[in-house]
Amino acid sequence: MTVTLLLEPLPADARIDDLASTFREVPADAPALRVGELSTQRGDGVFETISVTDGHAQETGPHLDRLRNSAVICELPEPNLAQWRAAIAAAVALLPARGEFALKLVLSRGVEHGPAPTAWLHAAPAADFARVREQGISVVTLDRGYAHDAAAKAPWLLLGAKTLSYATNMAALREARRRGADDTIFVSSDGFVMEGPTSSVILRHGEVYSTPAPSGAILHGTTQMSLFDHLAETGRTTEYRDVRVEELSTADAVWLVSSVRLAAGVTELDGAVFPYDADETRAFNDYLLTPRD
Amino acid sequence: MTVTLLLEPLPADARIDDLASTFREVPADAPALRVGELSTQRGDGVFETISVTDGHAQETGPHLDRLRNSAVICELPEPNLAQWRAAIAAAVALLPARGEFALKLVLSRGVEHGPAPTAWLHAAPAADFARVREQGISVVTLDRGYAHDAAAKAPWLLLGAKTLSYATNMAALREARRRGADDTIFVSSDGFVMEGPTSSVILRHGEVYSTPAPSGAILHGTTQMSLFDHLAETGRTTEYRDVRVEELSTADAVWLVSSVRLAAGVTELDGAVFPYDADETRAFNDYLLTPRD
Repeated sequence: MTVTLLLEPLPADARIDDLASTFREVPADAPALRVGELSTQRGDGVFETISVTDGHAQETGPHLDRLRNSAVICELPEPNLAQWRAAIAAAVALLPARGEFALKLVLSRGVEHGPAPTAWLHAAPAADFARVREQGISVVTLDRGYAHDAAAKAPWLLLGAKTLSYATNMAALREARRRGADDTIFVSSDGFVMEGPTSSVILRHGEVYSTPAPSGAILHGTTQMSLFDHLAETGRTTEYRDVRVEELSTADAVWLVSSVRLAAGVTELDGAVFPYDADETRAFNDYLLTPRD
Repeated sequence: MTVTLLLEPLPADARIDDLASTFREVPADAPALRVGELSTQRGDGVFETISVTDGHAQETGPHLDRLRNSAVICELPEPNLAQWRAAIAAAVALLPARGEFALKLVLSRGVEHGPAPTAWLHAAPAADFARVREQGISVVTLDRGYAHDAAAKAPWLLLGAKTLSYATNMAALREARRRGADDTIFVSSDGFVMEGPTSSVILRHGEVYSTPAPSGAILHGTTQMSLFDHLAETGRTTEYRDVRVEELSTADAVWLVSSVRLAAGVTELDGAVFPYDADETRAFNDYLLTPRD
């Protein structure tokens, strides 16, 4: 069960009454993109992945805000968020009422020399992460090659944008598996914790939850933000700050959180057993599986 | 006038008599790729751009060697080079006998969870670079964020592979234009000359031509190698070595060389007028426009 909708290019401020007329469904197994697409030739575009849980698209607002922010960083035309909201709602309506789905939004620079960007969304069943959420993951740290302040000095590195140029992220996941691990935490060349290739990192020291400050070198994680809101609302202390790599080993618990897999607790770090809080991980995922906006 | 051929997945060592039956032409303006393509979702694939000059595909062998090397680095199935050669020949036969064309080869990891990679080539008229070849380019240096030995320490950065994840390269070109320049030379975070976003750097000090050693952090440039072969054959001294950023300012001439634009002499560097050798640049391009294998 998949749903693919192609969106017609629309200026960010266009007000259209019949937004449903600006996108159309295409068969998932049929070709929909031209080879001149800059998304495919250059990884030149931005994306978001939203979880659709039992018929509810999670955190649509934060995802669309980040899509727009990524577009601004990449100097793409700003997306029309009303159109995206309508397309997301249409896709959700076509999906089964139960179950978890991954809904990917893509905004590409379009066909080379073309007049307009290309945009589409694609929803497919999520992998079954029940076991991972329950039992946790083994993680290795890998050098991301950049200093943690690289983004401020070199914005053309696009580090704060969720671009389609993810070949390195995918290679890092392959390297993790080669080392017998499930996932990786990127560390900066100057010794700071950054993020996972497709996730944010949350540490707990005592009663304090921290995550690397989104200085531009890492993405502001929608799931991490949602969880921090929840923690703050329930009286816990959260903080954004620079986190040294050594602090991973002194943490009482570490999680990688992302939109579709949700909270995965670290059970092993760089080959050593790591303290894993099964109860808190379960509580995190219970919260993350509720409808959130 | 464009030509697009889709190649059927073929193991590297498959020996097929009728190779022409393993690829087919598709209309350039028709959709040919599925939205599940990892090339478009993740920039997950590798490519080459070959110049076709008056009916001759330049340096096909070195380009295919590099395509294979990129595939190995990215753990993609090795391409069947006989099939690619046959497809390139078929595309060239469909192009006009005169003029310059850019022929792009793409090898993608294929559709997500799909059984096989996707491969295609696409030929289109090259931009008219006559003026640039004659009058040169203004260039700014931009920080690439990595140390020059990053690739050796972190192969998952894929720095030696020509991947489809080129969003940063494209952003660097936009930054150069924002600064009033035509192109950029990437420099490492520790002060070494690397490469252009789509070109190699050649410096001349006196009678010696040098280019940054392809240590894995930069691509081995096919046009640079071809030009160095030519220089060596005509009695000039060439060398691969680490090049400090300061050496740019002491050079007697600097060129950015690439497959389609060919040799572009630097006339301005970071806002200052730079020595430009029009005669030697013309000689380089005269050579580069001859049929080369």
